[in-house]
Amino acid sequence: MMPFQELIDFERAKKIILENTWEMDRVEEISITEACGRVLAEDIEADFNIPGFARAAMDGYAVIASDTFGASMRNPVKLRLIGKIFAGEIAKEEVKKGTCMQIATGAALPEGSDAVIMVENTSAEGDEVQIFKPVYPGANVSSPDEDVKKGEKVLAEGMILNPPKIGVLAALGMEKVRVYEKPEVHIYPTGREIVSPGCEIEYGKIYDINSYTLATLLKEEGADVHIHPIVDDDKETIERCFEGGGDYIIFSGGSSVGERDMIADAIEKHGKLFFHGIALKPGKPTIFGKVGKTLVFGMPGYPTSCLTNAYVLLLPSIKKMARLPLIIKREEVTLAERIVSTIGRYQIYPVKVKEGKAYPVFKESGAITSLSNASGYIEIPANVEYLDKGSKVLVTYF
Amino acid sequence: MMPFQELIDFERAKKIILENTWEMDRVEEISITEACGRVLAEDIEADFNIPGFARAAMDGYAVIASDTFGASMRNPVKLRLIGKIFAGEIAKEEVKKGTCMQIATGAALPEGSDAVIMVENTSAEGDEVQIFKPVYPGANVSSPDEDVKKGEKVLAEGMILNPPKIGVLAALGMEKVRVYEKPEVHIYPTGREIVSPGCEIEYGKIYDINSYTLATLLKEEGADVHIHPIVDDDKETIERCFEGGGDYIIFSGGSSVGERDMIADAIEKHGKLFFHGIALKPGKPTIFGKVGKTLVFGMPGYPTSCLTNAYVLLLPSIKKMARLPLIIKREEVTLAERIVSTIGRYQIYPVKVKEGKAYPVFKESGAITSLSNASGYIEIPANVEYLDKGSKVLVTYF
Repeated sequence: MMPFQELIDFERAKKIILENTWEMDRVEEISITEACGRVLAEDIEADFNIPGFARAAMDGYAVIASDTFGASMRNPVKLRLIGKIFAGEIAKEEVKKGTCMQIATGAALPEGSDAVIMVENTSAEGDEVQIFKPVYPGANVSSPDEDVKKGEKVLAEGMILNPPKIGVLAALGMEKVRVYEKPEVHIYPTGREIVSPGCEIEYGKIYDINSYTLATLLKEEGADVHIHPIVDDDKETIERCFEGGGDYIIFSGGSSVGERDMIADAIEKHGKLFFHGIALKPGKPTIFGKVGKTLVFGMPGYPTSCLTNAYVLLLPSIKKMARLPLIIKREEVTLAERIVSTIGRYQIYPVKVKEGKAYPVFKESGAITSLSNASGYIEIPANVEYLDKGSKVLVTYF
Repeated sequence: MMPFQELIDFERAKKIILENTWEMDRVEEISITEACGRVLAEDIEADFNIPGFARAAMDGYAVIASDTFGASMRNPVKLRLIGKIFAGEIAKEEVKKGTCMQIATGAALPEGSDAVIMVENTSAEGDEVQIFKPVYPGANVSSPDEDVKKGEKVLAEGMILNPPKIGVLAALGMEKVRVYEKPEVHIYPTGREIVSPGCEIEYGKIYDINSYTLATLLKEEGADVHIHPIVDDDKETIERCFEGGGDYIIFSGGSSVGERDMIADAIEKHGKLFFHGIALKPGKPTIFGKVGKTLVFGMPGYPTSCLTNAYVLLLPSIKKMARLPLIIKREEVTLAERIVSTIGRYQIYPVKVKEGKAYPVFKESGAITSLSNASGYIEIPANVEYLDKGSKVLVTYF
């Protein structure tokens, strides 16, 4: 049970973590129905024109435009109706001079015709159609490459797929798409005092909270998360966790100094330990290192510390690796009560926002209800002693 | 091929849809690891105190506070060390007058002791611990109900579960939680001209875009979505879709008037048709009705029309049923080019936002690239003829 030797400051800790985070380079092929929010791993070029054929943009009659020149209400042009064509069908006959074909929106223009006249500008009786208005060649016709031209780059590597972009993939006939894999996160709960939810609990023990807050946060933010069974806090068991690999190993935190030292020692033995302890409140006992290519975090044991640290330190790294933007919802509001801070430690303070005012809701680092009642948190720099009631503060929402 | 008989205005269409949307009442039990973003279907009361025992809030020594009264650097109090206790352990011995026990953060306070003195204010040698500072009873001790009191309502029905709230469920030992079911959406692609992505395509046909844009949007926004195989556009086949039930049936749209009439007729025959045609551009040919308890939408066939309509009409309904807030990301920007609108029709216009300016990107309703290049859309009321370059417009982001 030694005290921390050297605390690094918060901004430096953030920088070290991000500098050691690479961008995902593994790629997987998934169904387009699963691809919303995923990051495209290849440029998409069109192999063909879309729609791929000239089609009617209106319900009406396919005509030869020159046949309609001079038509008016007084002097309608009369054309012979030779058939009907629906979307998805191919006309069996050619439109020749003096004839026309009834056509539905989206149907391929029959051979011979070069324009569509809207049904409103016509009158039909039997197989005779009267045309009251001339049309120019190409009128009410979408060209074969109106939407997409063959060879055109329609989507670029690195784009985040949303419903319209998935629509483009569908339009190209793609059932599957190559996207970057999600960062693979392995959570190892540590701490002799914790018990998994759903199990019987004994006096002196508490349920594991941290694995679940971390897992749901990281999953929501684009990671592929695995919660492992609770790990005994002995050196060998902790070292064995490294064998499982993954992009991230997260020890979700025993609360005692001894356990944390064991994790730091294990990282140092097998890889590189970047820091062990941050001048941050809550969240001081945070460990960061690298074993092989795997980023290793030792999170604080206290639920509030663990989760706020996940928001401010872990999330930016996960997002960078996943090639996703870090979207932070922030708002300036008025502080409803005075908050006293700790000089020399950067503070993350949970608040509840009600009617434009921020109310402190911090109970203690061990209290998960500190966060479940909070709307978000404010950050107080290390050199600030207190924030007065009525100050303007920037709330970051969960 | 009849023209539309009666167009209803956009605001009325929205109102009718919302009035006919009920809130989900079916409940399911799911793992807490899957519950982020879901809506809690029950109040959660604590069955026990959390942490459930008095625990050390610091690393240090468990003492009887009155033993330390009068201690100072000059006159330290000397206590006999009788053991060591880690988090998760139960002390085997009682702390009696004149003794103390080394204790780790989070460990249950040993019987007899009533305070913890920080290791920094002590000095130990062998089994003798010198205390340099007095502590009051309860110092550095978290009470058994510090976080949650037995019987306390910690979460309320209707809350949206986020990582901190899932932490509360874990703290209560809950592995599963009862949440409202997601709305069940069945998408039936219609239109003789469409082919499913991944299949061979013939001349005159196009790939099905709408089922995929709709499915990914609605899934992302909290629905449970099923895409069915392409439906033949005959009356019997369309009517058979109603037998499958669900909360929503969405015909993802053939583009011809004939198909849409068939859908409207089928709804009228088996249930109630509320409207068929909205004074909206694009998106006029939209159908809404109810068959039994199922809400039935006939979406426009054109990809742009179909998807923008899904954003403005379908999404508010899905969110209401799911009991989720409709979160709309809006920003006021300057229009970079003049847009001419259609008097008498409410218009949804896709734009790309670049450096605070909105650029129109509309190609034609049939073009999916109209939307894939857009950042979002602006809405132009029915009585507006054009928007000048330089006007302030409100962009709704995808």
